[in-house]
Amino acid sequence: MAQVYLDNYAATPIIPEAREAMLPFLESEFGNPSSLHSWGDRAREAVEEARSRVASLINAEPEEIIFTSNGSEANNLAVKGLAGALKKRGEHVVVSAVEHFSVLNPVKTLEKSGFEVTVVPVDPYGTVDLQALEEALRKDTVLVSVMAANGEIGTVEPLAEAASLAAERGIAFHTDAVAAAAFVDIDVKETGITALSLASDLLYGPKGAGALFLRKGTRILPQVEGGVQEGGRRSGTENVPSIVGMGVAAELAASLREERSGRLSAMRDQLIRRMLEEVPHIRLTGHPTERLPWNASFVVDFIEGESMLLFLDQRGIAVSSGSACTSRALKRSHVLDACGVPVESTQGSILFSFGLENRPEDVDAVMEALPPIVERLRQMSPLYAKFLREGGA
Amino acid sequence: MAQVYLDNYAATPIIPEAREAMLPFLESEFGNPSSLHSWGDRAREAVEEARSRVASLINAEPEEIIFTSNGSEANNLAVKGLAGALKKRGEHVVVSAVEHFSVLNPVKTLEKSGFEVTVVPVDPYGTVDLQALEEALRKDTVLVSVMAANGEIGTVEPLAEAASLAAERGIAFHTDAVAAAAFVDIDVKETGITALSLASDLLYGPKGAGALFLRKGTRILPQVEGGVQEGGRRSGTENVPSIVGMGVAAELAASLREERSGRLSAMRDQLIRRMLEEVPHIRLTGHPTERLPWNASFVVDFIEGESMLLFLDQRGIAVSSGSACTSRALKRSHVLDACGVPVESTQGSILFSFGLENRPEDVDAVMEALPPIVERLRQMSPLYAKFLREGGA
Repeated sequence: MAQVYLDNYAATPIIPEAREAMLPFLESEFGNPSSLHSWGDRAREAVEEARSRVASLINAEPEEIIFTSNGSEANNLAVKGLAGALKKRGEHVVVSAVEHFSVLNPVKTLEKSGFEVTVVPVDPYGTVDLQALEEALRKDTVLVSVMAANGEIGTVEPLAEAASLAAERGIAFHTDAVAAAAFVDIDVKETGITALSLASDLLYGPKGAGALFLRKGTRILPQVEGGVQEGGRRSGTENVPSIVGMGVAAELAASLREERSGRLSAMRDQLIRRMLEEVPHIRLTGHPTERLPWNASFVVDFIEGESMLLFLDQRGIAVSSGSACTSRALKRSHVLDACGVPVESTQGSILFSFGLENRPEDVDAVMEALPPIVERLRQMSPLYAKFLREGGA
Repeated sequence: MAQVYLDNYAATPIIPEAREAMLPFLESEFGNPSSLHSWGDRAREAVEEARSRVASLINAEPEEIIFTSNGSEANNLAVKGLAGALKKRGEHVVVSAVEHFSVLNPVKTLEKSGFEVTVVPVDPYGTVDLQALEEALRKDTVLVSVMAANGEIGTVEPLAEAASLAAERGIAFHTDAVAAAAFVDIDVKETGITALSLASDLLYGPKGAGALFLRKGTRILPQVEGGVQEGGRRSGTENVPSIVGMGVAAELAASLREERSGRLSAMRDQLIRRMLEEVPHIRLTGHPTERLPWNASFVVDFIEGESMLLFLDQRGIAVSSGSACTSRALKRSHVLDACGVPVESTQGSILFSFGLENRPEDVDAVMEALPPIVERLRQMSPLYAKFLREGGA
């Protein structure tokens, strides 16, 4: 059976260069970067080299990079750590409606502790409404968090514009760049961003590492407290192998961005074109052009995304129906809701996320497998029967 | 040059069985456990198998294990998560004076948010004063945290007694078992512990994984919020390779505990005996018998621990002067302070932490290298000169 993996938003194979770089740190180079002897020195040097590499990806300084265990932890640190540090200046926070739950849930926690929160809407493409964002900013606003791109629907957000609205008013600005960083060129110096979250696996590095860029001189309350690792901003023994792998992945993400973008977006476009042509009652979600090169997301009417996913899995094709972080919660997507996708359609969401190992034939495999699955599911769908009874076609 | 690594409290080589188990998850088995397809299934099964193995180590149920990124994160989750969930019942927390900073610093944060904290003293061996602990417990006490053993001085704490003082009063009891778990047999069912922290690397597993045991039915506030991973108690993509490695390490820790304890404590005892005999002005820190099998910790008068460490490093011998988490802070040890070690002596602390790869010859290597180093440093020490002038010998 064909093995076609098209769920790179959930997990990516580690690029060989990153894996190779990790291996010594799983064997003889097991030192703790905090140790004051040679084993510690070598581990520390490796972590510091990785820090420089991650910093370079977004034009930051190495000391502006705080390693975490993943992207969600970086988002939590940014939101709770910055809001906590700025509490005395004001207790109002602004986020977009399509943020990841690792931004939205921390914001809910802030709300319980007395913060006010404004959620800025998006247009039907999932693009943040900049005018609404501007109107949301108040004297007591201390933090704005708008993601760089949405992984679920692929929409690349107007980051520079959003960041400058905050910067002009002296408001801290955080962006979740987890889904974007491998493909969207972000310069933290140019945009004046205060904080930016990254995840190793979405750079094709290993699991177990993430990072928060934090602009020099910005105070943050650590969320994992204890030892003096990461300048006291994130305690706990560093996951050296994953950090080393993340560094290599970040460097390659920067140098290969254009080549990769071209290759992946060609497959993406081919899949989008054929899906819209060959699958009835389907529509693309997210922005048609301002879109991550790897993301092809759709809603198919009358059908549950999950059923499509399970049938495709039987054909050896792995996809998702949205964010892996919430797939087991089986709730409707807040992102599609925010885009105004009708309730009955959000059930039929399906996300193809391309990665470095995909080949154009993978699109053919999907287009061979999916239309009969959709047809079969539609014939079983009471919603489709109702649609036909009411004169649909 | 000899390479003698005696800093296993800071970092341990990964046991080969754990590394071998991890490798597939760094290559073809890269799936996200939350994904609903075959790649996700295999990753999820691996995580669940690891969860069972970690649970077995402490006689817990698999669903009582929450994976984190390391021991510090587990301690933070326990302290802030439990206190936060219990806040309405009372705002008093009790900890021992020798806890790790990943317990003490979160407790300071609780203090800032309105909690009252009682710090229970220890005796000169670092053993928690059970009478003082009992007296500290109040009607509004909601959490007690006493570690299972102290990694810096090796003292094994009266865990069962401390836990039952809390349990009898219906107070949640957390224990940091990071330093203890590989060698101290802890049964969470028998002791009635509410929460217990573990770190993979101190079980001879990889970095990048830790775990919190949380008794069934206990409410906790997640600290990393977002997706529904770990039952919503710890969000963020699971570090599957490290979790798998931790599982294997936990299983071996249970089955090999006695053999390992015997082997390590023989080396430890040999080193302690020779150090006390051959190095003048030295004393053992921590408890003489209720002691972790791997820990030989001392203070040497008139000399800085750091200098000994650096000279030993030049001879290819890696040791530490205490906890790696704070070694770069260059502060006096709060643990030695709590034991009443005089200020001038705490500077001279040195910790030898044995691991699975050590051999009896390593003790010989230390005993060949260290006495001349101590002698040389003492001759350079103004404190020693003063001591001699004042008639010491």
